[in-house]
Amino acid sequence: MNKKLVLHTLAKMGIIEIALMMMPTLISVYYREFASMRVFLFVILISAFINVPVLLFVKPDKSKNINARDGIAIAALGWILLSLYGAFPFYISGQIPRFTDALFESISGFTTTGASILSNVESLSRSMMFWRCLTHWIGGMGVLVLTVALLPSDKKSSGLQLMRAECPGPTVEKLVPKGKSSAMILYFIYGGLTIIMIIFLLAGGMPLYDSVCHAFGTAGTGGFNVKNAGLGFYNSAYIEGVVTVFMILFGVNFNIYYFLIMRKFIGIYKNTELKVYLGTIIASISLVIVNTMQYGIFDKFSKALRYASFQVGSIMTSTGYSTADFDSWPEFSKTLLICLMFIGACAGSTGGGFKVSRVIILCKTAKRSLRKALHPKSVNVVKSDDKALDLETVHNVSSYLIIYIVIFFISLIIISFNNFDFATSFSSVTACLNNIGPGISAVGPTCDYSALSDLSKYILSADMLLGRLECLPLLMLCAPSMWFKKLY
Amino acid sequence: MNKKLVLHTLAKMGIIEIALMMMPTLISVYYREFASMRVFLFVILISAFINVPVLLFVKPDKSKNINARDGIAIAALGWILLSLYGAFPFYISGQIPRFTDALFESISGFTTTGASILSNVESLSRSMMFWRCLTHWIGGMGVLVLTVALLPSDKKSSGLQLMRAECPGPTVEKLVPKGKSSAMILYFIYGGLTIIMIIFLLAGGMPLYDSVCHAFGTAGTGGFNVKNAGLGFYNSAYIEGVVTVFMILFGVNFNIYYFLIMRKFIGIYKNTELKVYLGTIIASISLVIVNTMQYGIFDKFSKALRYASFQVGSIMTSTGYSTADFDSWPEFSKTLLICLMFIGACAGSTGGGFKVSRVIILCKTAKRSLRKALHPKSVNVVKSDDKALDLETVHNVSSYLIIYIVIFFISLIIISFNNFDFATSFSSVTACLNNIGPGISAVGPTCDYSALSDLSKYILSADMLLGRLECLPLLMLCAPSMWFKKLY
Repeated sequence: MNKKLVLHTLAKMGIIEIALMMMPTLISVYYREFASMRVFLFVILISAFINVPVLLFVKPDKSKNINARDGIAIAALGWILLSLYGAFPFYISGQIPRFTDALFESISGFTTTGASILSNVESLSRSMMFWRCLTHWIGGMGVLVLTVALLPSDKKSSGLQLMRAECPGPTVEKLVPKGKSSAMILYFIYGGLTIIMIIFLLAGGMPLYDSVCHAFGTAGTGGFNVKNAGLGFYNSAYIEGVVTVFMILFGVNFNIYYFLIMRKFIGIYKNTELKVYLGTIIASISLVIVNTMQYGIFDKFSKALRYASFQVGSIMTSTGYSTADFDSWPEFSKTLLICLMFIGACAGSTGGGFKVSRVIILCKTAKRSLRKALHPKSVNVVKSDDKALDLETVHNVSSYLIIYIVIFFISLIIISFNNFDFATSFSSVTACLNNIGPGISAVGPTCDYSALSDLSKYILSADMLLGRLECLPLLMLCAPSMWFKKLY
Repeated sequence: MNKKLVLHTLAKMGIIEIALMMMPTLISVYYREFASMRVFLFVILISAFINVPVLLFVKPDKSKNINARDGIAIAALGWILLSLYGAFPFYISGQIPRFTDALFESISGFTTTGASILSNVESLSRSMMFWRCLTHWIGGMGVLVLTVALLPSDKKSSGLQLMRAECPGPTVEKLVPKGKSSAMILYFIYGGLTIIMIIFLLAGGMPLYDSVCHAFGTAGTGGFNVKNAGLGFYNSAYIEGVVTVFMILFGVNFNIYYFLIMRKFIGIYKNTELKVYLGTIIASISLVIVNTMQYGIFDKFSKALRYASFQVGSIMTSTGYSTADFDSWPEFSKTLLICLMFIGACAGSTGGGFKVSRVIILCKTAKRSLRKALHPKSVNVVKSDDKALDLETVHNVSSYLIIYIVIFFISLIIISFNNFDFATSFSSVTACLNNIGPGISAVGPTCDYSALSDLSKYILSADMLLGRLECLPLLMLCAPSMWFKKLY
């Protein structure tokens, strides 16, 4: 591992974080929350005190590029540092008195999970609440992508290795040859959509502060609430409609928007993932409507449509907002939502979960394998969007599934120490590993994660990071050969 | 597909089934249960009326061998016919008045699941109960293996293709070059162990009839009870100990016993699967003992050891007997048992589940993939028992996992229509797909499957067959190219 290069890039990331924390600091000045302001300034100073010297004095070897291993190390270490850094304002201000809880909340924010340990969200100061929602927006598209986009780099290929380690999905496609330009385009689309959403929310009569916070939460597919009553507080079908549409939009692969801007409509038309994603959402909404109306949860179709589409969109895109207590819905709807949690959003979006494209590749692999058993001599390749996928990608998706399952079951066993019912244990791991937020039963939409033990909170925090970084980087950190040169 | 050959082999299988049904017929004579006797004779006559003409008049083309596709078709059709055939005595005698239930019970028997729709087991006649337990014994080692072992065959390689379609595990190793001899050796070991177990049970004071029935259930890792109170009826630590040991023995790959007989101790010593299997059992027993004692379920260590080892052995080997209501145990123990359900027993044993050897291959594949990400240029092969596994096996295990997960989630969603709690839906699918028997909550060890809807019973029946035949054969039946020649 190129340690100097890793340190240097981490320091760059630290500088970006300082710039980002300026925003809640300004908010605290505006709302005259001087206690919060002092906390933010203190954290910024500490960070500057560490990062600036590293940036100035640790000079990486100019002749070396960032390789895959360095990218992985930067992503893993960067996200751990980022989460720690994000937890300090909550903890130092005393607004979240226990550090375990502050860290859980910070990780939940950056990983865009949206699981909270706060029973009373409104107890936070306005600036702290803003920081909490901003973590969603930063984590959604990724802090490394932002670093690549904003800071100058001498290397051409460096950006792509960093983005590859942070971007969700089985393959990372370059929009344009240069990593830096790709990152800028992604953030341009991301920011643009966020601003459009804020305008739509303002038009619905939502206050500016709330609109910005909810737009951050939706854009990052996070799901932190601003009110204790969640989005139900506004009780407006218009606002819920806007949020539903934007949740689904942010769950789409951002390449699609780039194609749209470049007028490459054939790329959109041929995208299997988009079709499956939208098809699954429509089918699930229909099933939930039928099921909830059959059990008399909703008396009118319009009401069922409103709540079902919001909830399906929220879960499928891994946002985790809720307008209805879906834990009281019939078991079929609940089970369907849990299954959607595993599928997740599209690759290359801000959403979590296993990703639609991976599910498609898995199903095609299974189909190929069945055909192979029937016709042993036939040649079958797994195709995606009319392109044959290389064996390595197919193999990696299978391996990811295995690692994912192993992590899932180990977490489930440890969480079950809490002695909550099976639905709680199962859905809390599901919701955290897939970056959703709420589960069912004791971690349902009307409850929070505060009742869990510290051990469970650490395990779920790890699950959230594993889910956001798609397992590999964090697991790599534990491999000795990541740190030492091979001795043999 | 070679239709004549398939029909001919199915008829052979039918003859074996007639011979097997003679056993409960004799029992019915002994116990003077003439109503049951008439039912058995009627079913035998019908079967003979169909199978004998087929065997005599449908002559397969002598020049053709059974290929992989034929083997798969025979296994799938054979098991469906076998289950139907096995259901008739229950249904015609009126002892299980609904056909759905009779079929569920029959499939549960042959697939060695042991899930029952009977609330009052003791209401069955002695001969009918014997038939119910005998289905476990037949299904455990497999009816095709028995057919290969007993009936003459002109082809050398035919036996192996049949055994491959029925035997559980990622690879099928021939014990001896000839399929027929391998099948005979397997049944010799199977029968021998069963007889030894009967002797041990008799020594503990269990009546002969009960001993035979329980030995059948244990040998097939089935789990049907003879008494409503289950094995708890005898309240004997000795009997429970004997059953525990034999459950674990029947969950071991039968190749191990062949090595033992042939004094090839190196093959046993080098067997990774055996080590992992026994290690998992010991570790799980220890954890359950600590957890249950901590929650005050058991006051003495000896008691905890007795119940924990029985339950872990019963679940891990997919037998499904129970001596304690483990549904009232703390969540950690329950979750651990559910995880063990997925792992299952060793490949090449009579047990169900995903199989220890597949889990080992999956973990090694994941490890290889992690190493590959760190060192992209390294060459890594997946090894098992010091032999490098070919890519096709590794790929097949991954594909099996995917198919298994897809079936699991589809079943889970359909079962959730029953509106039972999540633990019930989840554990009923887990218990049926892995051929265990009891789950937790409403399908826990003190309950049965009678409360489920007909749709659910059919889905769970399909899951049991899918689990026993390891998915492939039944799914193949649905492929059009299985039946028709390719037109293009």
